Amino acid sequence: MKLLYPTTLNLNPSLLAGFPTLTLHPYDATAPTLPASLHDATILITWANSAANLSFAASHLPQLRWIQSLAAGPNDVLAAGFDTARVTICTGSGLHDHTVAEHALGLLLTAARRFHEMRDWQVRGKWPAHLGGPQPDREPGTFRTLRDARVLVWGFGNIAKCLTPMLVGLGATVRGVARRAGVRAGVEVFGEDKLAELLPQTDALVMILPGDASTRHVLNKERLALLPKHAWLVNVGRGSSVDEDALFEALEKEEIGGAALDVFEKEPLPEGDKLYKAKNLVLSPHAAGGRPQGAEELIVDNLRKFLAGQEMRNVV
Amino acid sequence: MKLLYPTTLNLNPSLLAGFPTLTLHPYDATAPTLPASLHDATILITWANSAANLSFAASHLPQLRWIQSLAAGPNDVLAAGFDTARVTICTGSGLHDHTVAEHALGLLLTAARRFHEMRDWQVRGKWPAHLGGPQPDREPGTFRTLRDARVLVWGFGNIAKCLTPMLVGLGATVRGVARRAGVRAGVEVFGEDKLAELLPQTDALVMILPGDASTRHVLNKERLALLPKHAWLVNVGRGSSVDEDALFEALEKEEIGGAALDVFEKEPLPEGDKLYKAKNLVLSPHAAGGRPQGAEELIVDNLRKFLAGQEMRNVV
Ligand SMILES: NC(=O)c1ccc[n+]([C@@H]2O[C@H](COP(=O)([O-])OP(=O)(O)OC[C@H]3O[C@@H](n4cnc5c(N)ncnc54)[C@H](OP(=O)(O)O)[C@@H]3O)[C@@H](O)[C@H]2O)c1
Ligand SMILES: NC(=O)c1ccc[n+]([C@@H]2O[C@H](COP(=O)([O-])OP(=O)(O)OC[C@H]3O[C@@H](n4cnc5c(N)ncnc54)[C@H](OP(=O)(O)O)[C@@H]3O)[C@@H](O)[C@H]2O)c1
Repeated sequence: MKLLYPTTLNLNPSLLAGFPTLTLHPYDATAPTLPASLHDATILITWANSAANLSFAASHLPQLRWIQSLAAGPNDVLAAGFDTARVTICTGSGLHDHTVAEHALGLLLTAARRFHEMRDWQVRGKWPAHLGGPQPDREPGTFRTLRDARVLVWGFGNIAKCLTPMLVGLGATVRGVARRAGVRAGVEVFGEDKLAELLPQTDALVMILPGDASTRHVLNKERLALLPKHAWLVNVGRGSSVDEDALFEALEKEEIGGAALDVFEKEPLPEGDKLYKAKNLVLSPHAAGGRPQGAEELIVDNLRKFLAGQEMRNVV
Repeated sequence: MKLLYPTTLNLNPSLLAGFPTLTLHPYDATAPTLPASLHDATILITWANSAANLSFAASHLPQLRWIQSLAAGPNDVLAAGFDTARVTICTGSGLHDHTVAEHALGLLLTAARRFHEMRDWQVRGKWPAHLGGPQPDREPGTFRTLRDARVLVWGFGNIAKCLTPMLVGLGATVRGVARRAGVRAGVEVFGEDKLAELLPQTDALVMILPGDASTRHVLNKERLALLPKHAWLVNVGRGSSVDEDALFEALEKEEIGGAALDVFEKEPLPEGDKLYKAKNLVLSPHAAGGRPQGAEELIVDNLRKFLAGQEMRNVV
């Protein structure tokens, strides 16, 4: 039984050893095709594959049964046309928790501490006196620190669970929104039906939603209008979950405090797009994740389950 | 007995009540003089006083016995010429732990996640593809995340103790440098004699030193040369502890990874100063602290000790 693993990242194949019926084969995930010797593969690990590579795989691997993506949101695999009646697709959710959480925290601190504004002054060779020195402490109607800030995390999965203790350690109050309500990892998580109540009580909204049909433009004009004027949006999930036209308008009219976005409806954000210069917008080029951590452990765990005919982790 | 408290911040005088022999008097800390009715004060609380105000106080309050500064580094009070044989000076160390630690963390994440570089691209309307997407994970010789990063905190006092759990929560390995060696708050703290060993093993050096004669230019050319080429400096203590000419040279020659500075030898950093445009320098305008938290508790605790003739907290 052949397992193909990509050379687009440093996987350690010796950590996948120990399954006697399995052979391990590296492949170039950026190439438009796969060599004939690999067409009888049963298992495909994907990471940063080219679209051509995936669509070739979808039509040339008749024995394929399982794809383990290392991306938390494998939109590329889902769009490639694999026969899902035959091929089980698993996400890499869990491999990006730490990196995405760290990035989200950094964007929150950038917003609160106004590092982006400081940068603009520095580049002009000017000291931004108004951003430093003595200043009010935790004034209501401001977002200037995570201490006592009310952070709402929309999409309360693996990444959110990793982010929460970081935020709590900095003194924030964290609540969550997900499909199922209930307490998770010590945090009260609400259904979307409670958003109208929650958004007005939010200093920072962190979105960590997958990019599927159910999340398209869920942050729309009406919901943006429910946020306080000082509230910041941080999106490290998928750009499709935000109506960018509505967001642009809310920013320009200063109806919200600002937005720090790592993801966009179209990536790269096209040159000339109005978002580049939107008021109080901080742009990050899909840089939150991009470095799976612990991929071998996930693959091995799912390998054993696959071979034993048990339910695997992270099935789409 | 008169206590003068400044109106430069929102103190709650009712939290200072309960000492029958004491009367509480607000004063304008930015005014060049103090009204005659206050010249018989025994206790002076200071925050963001003008230099003129402090030097007036130094020569017009003959019964003054105690100054409680709310600044962690009360260089202004120390420079004002108070008769220290008669007047005890206490710092506000402890009131800025959280805010300065949060800011230091933000600067560390800015450095690791390269938010300042992203900003420069955004302002030019360009997508910095090289700063996002798939990337190597924790490559040796880089500082791209706090996870597994080796952080050395030089000046291991109250702020450092508050910063440490934040760093540890993000996966960093923390060591400290102070005058006295030993384990503090779970962290191994070394004397300055160990710097030659520690600096080469550092991914990020965080300086949180007071600005006195003993710390002047302690980060000099020789010590900068001991840092790895990728290492970042974050300084949230005092600018005088860094030899800025040596730092500028190290940055321009890319002998270190970069520097995020909240404090400078001269503040505001004069227009035209070469540091504004130094390579890989991130400037913050003394914005880390500036918002004492819990000032009333410190004042009350020291008030009781003062009236009881006991040793006070934070005596200089
Ligand atoms: N910026 C980056 O570089 C980067 C990197 C990695 C991942 N991501 C994105 O982050 C997303 C989340 O990753 P994760 O690992 O945390 O995923 P996860 O563990 O699967 O969690 C997803 C969360 O979203 C919730 N959710 C899904 N659809 C929803 C809907 N229609 N309404 C409300 N909540 C909904 C889920 O609710 P339930 O728990 O109730 O099911 C769950 O809490 C990924 O899908 C990916 O798109 C981005
Ligand atoms: N950027 C800002 O907005 C801001 C705000 C607040 C404070 N600060 C600065 O931060 C400084 C530290 O504040 P803190 O509250 O943490 O002070 P702290 O509790 O008094 O701690 C000072 C630390 O520095 C160490 N130290 C002093 N002189 C030293 C020397 N010559 N060599 C090596 N170590 C030395 C001390 O060592 P020992 O423990 O061994 O005595 C102690 O660990 C303040 O003095 C102030 O200048 C800046």
